Amino acid sequence: MASADVSASIRSISDELERASTTVAEADLSAFAALLDDAERVFVHGAGRSGLALRMTAMRLMHLGKRVHVVGETTAPAIGDGDVLLTASGSGSTGAVVTAARTAAEAGAGIAAITAVADSPLGELADAVVVVPAAAKLDRTGAASAQYAGSLFEQTVVVVGDAVFDALWHASGATADDLWPRHANLE
Amino acid sequence: MASADVSASIRSISDELERASTTVAEADLSAFAALLDDAERVFVHGAGRSGLALRMTAMRLMHLGKRVHVVGETTAPAIGDGDVLLTASGSGSTGAVVTAARTAAEAGAGIAAITAVADSPLGELADAVVVVPAAAKLDRTGAASAQYAGSLFEQTVVVVGDAVFDALWHASGATADDLWPRHANLE
Amino acid sequence: MASADVSASIRSISDELERASTTVAEADLSAFAALLDDAERVFVHGAGRSGLALRMTAMRLMHLGKRVHVVGETTAPAIGDGDVLLTASGSGSTGAVVTAARTAAEAGAGIAAITAVADSPLGELADAVVVVPAAAKLDRTGAASAQYAGSLFEQTVVVVGDAVFDALWHASGATADDLWPRHANLE
Amino acid sequence: MASADVSASIRSISDELERASTTVAEADLSAFAALLDDAERVFVHGAGRSGLALRMTAMRLMHLGKRVHVVGETTAPAIGDGDVLLTASGSGSTGAVVTAARTAAEAGAGIAAITAVADSPLGELADAVVVVPAAAKLDRTGAASAQYAGSLFEQTVVVVGDAVFDALWHASGATADDLWPRHANLE
Repeated sequence: MASADVSASIRSISDELERASTTVAEADLSAFAALLDDAERVFVHGAGRSGLALRMTAMRLMHLGKRVHVVGETTAPAIGDGDVLLTASGSGSTGAVVTAARTAAEAGAGIAAITAVADSPLGELADAVVVVPAAAKLDRTGAASAQYAGSLFEQTVVVVGDAVFDALWHASGATADDLWPRHANLE
Repeated sequence: MASADVSASIRSISDELERASTTVAEADLSAFAALLDDAERVFVHGAGRSGLALRMTAMRLMHLGKRVHVVGETTAPAIGDGDVLLTASGSGSTGAVVTAARTAAEAGAGIAAITAVADSPLGELADAVVVVPAAAKLDRTGAASAQYAGSLFEQTVVVVGDAVFDALWHASGATADDLWPRHANLE
Repeated sequence: MASADVSASIRSISDELERASTTVAEADLSAFAALLDDAERVFVHGAGRSGLALRMTAMRLMHLGKRVHVVGETTAPAIGDGDVLLTASGSGSTGAVVTAARTAAEAGAGIAAITAVADSPLGELADAVVVVPAAAKLDRTGAASAQYAGSLFEQTVVVVGDAVFDALWHASGATADDLWPRHANLE
Repeated sequence: MASADVSASIRSISDELERASTTVAEADLSAFAALLDDAERVFVHGAGRSGLALRMTAMRLMHLGKRVHVVGETTAPAIGDGDVLLTASGSGSTGAVVTAARTAAEAGAGIAAITAVADSPLGELADAVVVVPAAAKLDRTGAASAQYAGSLFEQTVVVVGDAVFDALWHASGATADDLWPRHANLE
């Protein structure tokens, strides 16, 4: 096997990620953050790596004092009126994600979605959409990214999620010391 | 390989489980249920199969309207004063479980524990203990159970957990229809 | 609130569980165990408490030396020819479970299912079915069980799963000491 | 509450992340990737958000054809000789992570660690270390990053993990279509 040049990969990923995350529309981000901020409870749902990326955001929103549940984890209750579903799908048409979004909408919940395809079932269901200029998972032509499958999209979900937290945190006026006592202490 | 006689195994397991679960002391069960009932929030923690068994209980306590978190899941916050740690360990000395119980006690939380060894680190830390007459995981002599490792203990945790729920449910006066709307609706 | 009588609940659950688990048909159990035993890899999938019960079985099948994956966990790969999907649904019509069973069948995998309703979408898709005489989750009339929702079914899944393991273990000729080194050592 | 400026947060995070990820030493990255590439099986372990970031990498390594287990998930077996523990801790002294690394080393496994503190218990146990110039979680002074707690570190774990995958993928000669059939098909 040829030798792996990880540094070259880091530079390439870093360039792609910088471009994808900084070109997201400012107005969309504000509406997205406001929807989450106003939610009574936030329910996080995503498949595969997008789901893991969103869980990183879920943890931070909990540190910020929000009531947050991850769909599929043991004690997540039913979503309802006043709640918001936070979800992400590169293609905007992942079966389980679209089904969950439809159920959430019928239950009266808002939907905050991150997708690479605005004109998708998820994009159309959402109350606030962040559109990421990144290859959707099923585009394996390398047109939008040199990376494998939805990697760039999933990395951007991490950055967007952390930026939403960062902005809400600063807007809240809370200090790091205010958040710290909420960190899990039994692991 | 010899043919597997599953029916014989069911009969044997059924006998062991009936004996182990019905010989738990009534006073211990009452104190255990009362501690959970009075908890502001319940934090569930267990390793391996005991942890899975407890998560079955966690889900039901959520259906009953309690605020419940599973330690290690994404959005579990810090345990504190007024909360109760619900945990189980056959030997009563599983490292991670004892560490969590110690941390919980220091944070002012109560500890409700199920164990096969009353005279164990976990048994001594607990505010309410249910002692199950079942082989601890490390006893592979077959003295207390013909089953593998802690199987009987773990099955008994399922039955005790569901009995605690059943009793609290009936005491609450709520109907099945009152609980149903809390079931997760996004999976 | 009335005082909770946990001992009474244990006796009642114990009776129901003994009756439900010992009346499962012997021939069905044998075929079910044989299908799992012959599987190249076992994929476990279930929603809610049934899913937790099946994960208890998944862990034991891993201890027995089988290659086992839980659907939805991080590193579960694609199911394929020669593999078996182990699943459970009281009603036999849980959306996500039936969808997964259909996909597994199309991929050439076998399906081993536990259900309370033989004549259900899941029952019809399955190559081996264990029918449990327990109230399905949606029957809240209390006809088949005095317990809440699918509790009796889920408890029976625990007992059936452990019995399948117990029977396969004895048929394998392996000792407890042969299995022990496979237990997770990093938790 | 003041209005949240998410775009400003994205620019700031993007700058920090670009700087942190591109200054990791090339030789360390090569040794780190080689250790993972040579592993018989990879076991992934991390607490909190670092753990979620590493699970993103775990999924990709599975797509690449590696045998990968996430510690704490249901069917993860025992680590042993020839295996590698892939772990991350900003401080290099997270209790559960250091304990797992010690157990892994005693079992004969290699340790590939990402940390912000080279001179830490984890750094000293590791066979290959990637040192990220990012604030450790406990440094809340804002000296190394304007972000909350270990956010920058955790984001960098995502980028480093994806870069290791990207480099190993290219070195393997496999195409995207070779990897695709390994993606989970039952969710």
